[in-house]
Amino acid sequence: RKVDISPNALLPYLGKNSVSWMDVQGLGSEEVLREVGTIFDLHPLLLEDIVNVPQRPKLDEYKDKLMFIAHMVRRHDGVDGFVTEQVSFILGKNYLVTFQEEELEDCFDLVRERIRNNQGKVRQSKADYLAYLLLDSLIDGYFPILEHYEERIEVLEEKIISEPDRKIMQEIYSIRRELLALRRLLWPLRNVLNLMIRDDHDLLTQEVQIYFRDCYDHVIQILDILEAYRELASSLMDAYMSSVGNKMNEIMKFLTVFTAIFNPLTFIAGVYGMNFENMPELKWSWAYFACLGVMFSIASIMIFLFWKKGWFKTTYSLDEE
Amino acid sequence: RKVDISPNALLPYLGKNSVSWMDVQGLGSEEVLREVGTIFDLHPLLLEDIVNVPQRPKLDEYKDKLMFIAHMVRRHDGVDGFVTEQVSFILGKNYLVTFQEEELEDCFDLVRERIRNNQGKVRQSKADYLAYLLLDSLIDGYFPILEHYEERIEVLEEKIISEPDRKIMQEIYSIRRELLALRRLLWPLRNVLNLMIRDDHDLLTQEVQIYFRDCYDHVIQILDILEAYRELASSLMDAYMSSVGNKMNEIMKFLTVFTAIFNPLTFIAGVYGMNFENMPELKWSWAYFACLGVMFSIASIMIFLFWKKGWFKTTYSLDEE
Amino acid sequence: RKVDISPNALLPYLGKNSVSWMDVQGLGSEEVLREVGTIFDLHPLLLEDIVNVPQRPKLDEYKDKLMFIAHMVRRHDGVDGFVTEQVSFILGKNYLVTFQEEELEDCFDLVRERIRNNQGKVRQSKADYLAYLLLDSLIDGYFPILEHYEERIEVLEEKIISEPDRKIMQEIYSIRRELLALRRLLWPLRNVLNLMIRDDHDLLTQEVQIYFRDCYDHVIQILDILEAYRELASSLMDAYMSSVGNKMNEIMKFLTVFTAIFNPLTFIAGVYGMNFENMPELKWSWAYFACLGVMFSIASIMIFLFWKKGWFKTTYSLDEE
Amino acid sequence: RKVDISPNALLPYLGKNSVSWMDVQGLGSEEVLREVGTIFDLHPLLLEDIVNVPQRPKLDEYKDKLMFIAHMVRRHDGVDGFVTEQVSFILGKNYLVTFQEEELEDCFDLVRERIRNNQGKVRQSKADYLAYLLLDSLIDGYFPILEHYEERIEVLEEKIISEPDRKIMQEIYSIRRELLALRRLLWPLRNVLNLMIRDDHDLLTQEVQIYFRDCYDHVIQILDILEAYRELASSLMDAYMSSVGNKMNEIMKFLTVFTAIFNPLTFIAGVYGMNFENMPELKWSWAYFACLGVMFSIASIMIFLFWKKGWFKTTYSLDEE
Amino acid sequence: RKVDISPNALLPYLGKNSVSWMDVQGLGSEEVLREVGTIFDLHPLLLEDIVNVPQRPKLDEYKDKLMFIAHMVRRHDGVDGFVTEQVSFILGKNYLVTFQEEELEDCFDLVRERIRNNQGKVRQSKADYLAYLLLDSLIDGYFPILEHYEERIEVLEEKIISEPDRKIMQEIYSIRRELLALRRLLWPLRNVLNLMIRDDHDLLTQEVQIYFRDCYDHVIQILDILEAYRELASSLMDAYMSSVGNKMNEIMKFLTVFTAIFNPLTFIAGVYGMNFENMPELKWSWAYFACLGVMFSIASIMIFLFWKKGWFKTTYSLDEE
Repeated sequence: RKVDISPNALLPYLGKNSVSWMDVQGLGSEEVLREVGTIFDLHPLLLEDIVNVPQRPKLDEYKDKLMFIAHMVRRHDGVDGFVTEQVSFILGKNYLVTFQEEELEDCFDLVRERIRNNQGKVRQSKADYLAYLLLDSLIDGYFPILEHYEERIEVLEEKIISEPDRKIMQEIYSIRRELLALRRLLWPLRNVLNLMIRDDHDLLTQEVQIYFRDCYDHVIQILDILEAYRELASSLMDAYMSSVGNKMNEIMKFLTVFTAIFNPLTFIAGVYGMNFENMPELKWSWAYFACLGVMFSIASIMIFLFWKKGWFKTTYSLDEE
Repeated sequence: RKVDISPNALLPYLGKNSVSWMDVQGLGSEEVLREVGTIFDLHPLLLEDIVNVPQRPKLDEYKDKLMFIAHMVRRHDGVDGFVTEQVSFILGKNYLVTFQEEELEDCFDLVRERIRNNQGKVRQSKADYLAYLLLDSLIDGYFPILEHYEERIEVLEEKIISEPDRKIMQEIYSIRRELLALRRLLWPLRNVLNLMIRDDHDLLTQEVQIYFRDCYDHVIQILDILEAYRELASSLMDAYMSSVGNKMNEIMKFLTVFTAIFNPLTFIAGVYGMNFENMPELKWSWAYFACLGVMFSIASIMIFLFWKKGWFKTTYSLDEE
Repeated sequence: RKVDISPNALLPYLGKNSVSWMDVQGLGSEEVLREVGTIFDLHPLLLEDIVNVPQRPKLDEYKDKLMFIAHMVRRHDGVDGFVTEQVSFILGKNYLVTFQEEELEDCFDLVRERIRNNQGKVRQSKADYLAYLLLDSLIDGYFPILEHYEERIEVLEEKIISEPDRKIMQEIYSIRRELLALRRLLWPLRNVLNLMIRDDHDLLTQEVQIYFRDCYDHVIQILDILEAYRELASSLMDAYMSSVGNKMNEIMKFLTVFTAIFNPLTFIAGVYGMNFENMPELKWSWAYFACLGVMFSIASIMIFLFWKKGWFKTTYSLDEE
Repeated sequence: RKVDISPNALLPYLGKNSVSWMDVQGLGSEEVLREVGTIFDLHPLLLEDIVNVPQRPKLDEYKDKLMFIAHMVRRHDGVDGFVTEQVSFILGKNYLVTFQEEELEDCFDLVRERIRNNQGKVRQSKADYLAYLLLDSLIDGYFPILEHYEERIEVLEEKIISEPDRKIMQEIYSIRRELLALRRLLWPLRNVLNLMIRDDHDLLTQEVQIYFRDCYDHVIQILDILEAYRELASSLMDAYMSSVGNKMNEIMKFLTVFTAIFNPLTFIAGVYGMNFENMPELKWSWAYFACLGVMFSIASIMIFLFWKKGWFKTTYSLDEE
Repeated sequence: RKVDISPNALLPYLGKNSVSWMDVQGLGSEEVLREVGTIFDLHPLLLEDIVNVPQRPKLDEYKDKLMFIAHMVRRHDGVDGFVTEQVSFILGKNYLVTFQEEELEDCFDLVRERIRNNQGKVRQSKADYLAYLLLDSLIDGYFPILEHYEERIEVLEEKIISEPDRKIMQEIYSIRRELLALRRLLWPLRNVLNLMIRDDHDLLTQEVQIYFRDCYDHVIQILDILEAYRELASSLMDAYMSSVGNKMNEIMKFLTVFTAIFNPLTFIAGVYGMNFENMPELKWSWAYFACLGVMFSIASIMIFLFWKKGWFKTTYSLDEE
């Protein structure tokens, strides 16, 4: 059950032995933040990082608390790409405070459900296990985004072969830019998780560090896939460029065929259109038909030569493929 | 002799001093997996990794067992490319459990043969040597794939010179994508093996670590070759692009030759087709023949100039080469 | 309140317990520099680094002082790009000396304001906190520059799609060159800050090192964004190149359409312009109109074929998009 | 003096205090290899590495011996490129065994000469010095190969400017592929040598390690040059591509000049070839000559405009340069 | 004062407490080198490195001496590029021996001057300070070379925009090759200096190491600039390529404009040049003028359409820009 409470109403819970999770949604109210800051004794620089979004994912260790920043990603309905939301975690001995930019809350809902239903071992565990659960569901949110890009790349692969138009270039550029943005979120997150599982932290039990190692493996996997997509996008650009060049060749062949066939014919017609008085051929009664015959032969030979060079075939296969 | 047994039927063997190898083929039955999980006391995260294929190759160390994931690769008959199958190894003191995605089992068959025939020293060795044998045969399965790509690259090299058509671009793109996928399987495997031979593990005797060092060398060698192929594929793309540009030049030369020869001739024919009353040349009886002679000279000179510029030669060598 | 004083006038303040900040603006007067050098006992190499601008950002540690160099960046009004100004910091136990190239002083003004108004904790802190404040405001000066480049890249993205002209190439080149220059300022600064927060320094209290860690995070963030922009600029170049190729295709199609439609028509007109005596068609009274009809049909068929090939559509979408 | 002896005949020498060098040429006879294996007590994996050529250069340390693999390179007469031959070294306390793929033996002949003539200090030294001598002569064999590539790159540089034909592309591609192959031989060799000079080895005296450091320096130098050549080859590809584009521009200019000059003239001729009854100009006696004059003027103006645009100059410089 | 003395004549000075500097210019005389070798007790490998130029910069440490190699660079008068000369330093307790390839000696002359005039603290210092002075003047010699390349790149930037001709490609290629050569001299030099300032050396006092740190900073700065130039050169190549493509578009537009305007006109003229008996238009007295009018209208419409498409504007701006 979710209620809006003021930060101070939380105070009595903190002294207890149980684990308290406070989820601050929306960073608008400065007053609330200051209140939270005083309750949990947060460093002013830390509060600044929470408010000045977007921050790079990072891990800051303080005497009795651990602060880390990660980013939720979410697909916009119908539109390509994704939106991000910064989530700041403050992990204390028996409490966890999370700050979200907005009040939309999809990817943490599953965890809330499990707490309410007393599912899994979350109720029996400490605050660090709760932090893992939230971070894990946050990281799992990246996989649908990856699939989204896989699909877009596959669509492009087919389009480049069948109909290489200008929109492909824009699309490749967008993909490159968005994958770049994703990587900027994940590289530092990888470092955060690496620090979490490498060093000894008073607030992270060794048992939970195994779980964070699992998170770390997921982030590495996502980064691997991202790098592969980035290389694919760059290969796609190469493929598109050569595809543009190929199309130009096809157009040029078309132009050349027309020019090469009609230029000689028009020239012959021009010759017998000259007005010299003494042009014996003009008077022969079968000359006109012979002339037409010659023209036809030239055209046929030309077409045959181009056909042998394979120019027609390629032109066709362009449309059929 | 291969029989289908239920996991629990294995229990009596585990207590013995001998080495037991259990090969779970197909990850469909959740019940079997849970049973195996309880027999060997597997961490829930570990079971998750086994089932959620594909995972990145990785090494997880637990108190009394070592878990690592690798990927079999296999050529599809007739089709380019390869298919992968995740194999998860769980190495205990006197047992080895392997999980395969499917029931097809080529690359482990050789090892099975050796066990049945009591060949080599597998029967005298511990579970770690068995793990080495399986991993080694799995890694050896990468070499035919490499040869497959070597062949494809060689075919492309020749094609780019002789007949640079559009399919080359697609083929280069496919090769790049597939080599990328191969690298994603092998880089983490290299790290897994590096961890295995670097650190001390209770479950790996130093004698067997020498064998794993051999596996490591093979993976490094495969990665070396992969990187070289990736660079070659990228050079091929460059070569193909310049080849497209060259072809365009040939087409343009062809077009230009036709235009440059017939444009002046058609113009001359046009001049003497004009209907001015006072055109003295028209009345000279030899004028028509002189005109044809001039036309012929112009055409000859043009052809000679183009020949000197080497335009015909290159056009020909395009077809001959 | 700002006054111009000679360096020697500062001497009495240095003995005191308070913190003195001396800001040398303009490096023109050699005499002043020598005076400062003797007062603060500066190594000759150090003085050389201050005067020979531009130096790479660096940190030099001396027995009783810390010297580091950073660079202010500032937007020129109306012009693209930025100007830099080297700032050298010399941090002693109870004094801070800064050297600026010029007398313009925007980005430090805020700090001066805070000192004068006794805002924040600057008055209660040591010289190291003052150094942090100045460095922080210097680094914050990079963010408007980043925004400036973000805007320019966005403008280019749109232009490449709508009207790819030659100026785009120049603009991309300028952006690449300027981002390169920015990176050359920031990479070494990152190292400087890394050294500051890693090692123990007598002159930096641990409390202030937390603040410098914040500076370090900002520099890392700026570098992250820079790298992303550099990759975007390079992708833009690719997009522009393929855009040039696309435009060429459009022009070629246009040319080909005209050639392919009028070449056959002109040929037919040429045929019936021939002067053979025996050309039966010429005498038929409806022949002229039939001929025009045939010409019209040929043109229609051609246009229909090109329309089916999608050549007109693409030509249009070029202008509309 | 070189004799063919069976491996067992070597046995009596091994016990002595002197240094024995056994050079196994040709890996064909399995029996000989097994014999050598038992005499020197070689690990089966080690023997496998010797026989399964090509292996990556590597260093394997065993209790009483050091095994390393390197590759000889040799120029084929008349053909571009190079051939490699794997050489495996097994260095024991007082013996050195080398395995070569074939019986051709150029690059070791110098060392043999020195041993026979008792030149240098090879006879006074241990087996490790002999190993150095052989490895050094092997590495020196790379320098002629480098010179070979330097020459080929220089030839290409000139060709790209003077006559950019299709063979250049193939040649650049070949160079890139072969340099890649060279690098694959040398990078691991560098690591082998690094291990040799870094760590303490019982079998390498410190005095001889200085000599191996010299080998290491040579390999680094060769790798440096290789990297430079690889970048040059890639720059050459860029230069060639832009050269192809330039050539296209030249051809296009040529085509455009012809079209732009003759299209207007042919049109004028066409106008006065029309058969309208009322065309007053046709009756003027000087009209024909005026018409020719106008045509001549138009052609002259066109040529002048193109000349001013610099189109003729560039066309010429293409042939002259 | 400079005199040519034989190496042996130096012997009496070495025993003294003062610092001796011996500068061997020209490596031709083998005898002199052998003499020097025996006086200073040089390892044969070391002497080999001195003679076999060019060597990679490197630092070799021996018991009582330090040997390092660096490279002087110098501009050739009038010609682009630079020439290098290897300088080998042998630093002993109270002596410094330098070996230069040739007898030209610009960049050390300043140091000689200072010694003769007893300027600075060189006379009061040890051999290591002298080594610093020489190395510093050697490194300072790189800055004019950098400026030379900065100028060349700036000239290219302007040329690519105003008149992109074929020589630009060659020039960019040369710059890339020469910057590559420079980098090959400086990267190892950076490592040499890093080793000098990192480790403890008996022959380098800590006071002088501060000076070498300054050298190190300079080399880093030069390398920074070099990398930036290399990236700029590569961007320039991109810019040039797209510039070639743009030029092609301009030429194509020109060609298309001519074709599109005159093809329809020539066709109309052809139609009324046909000899059909029944062509009613031919008899109308105003038909010829109407026909000319129609032709004029078509041409005007065409020109208007091209003008609206912006084809003329771009053509112009090509020449003006």
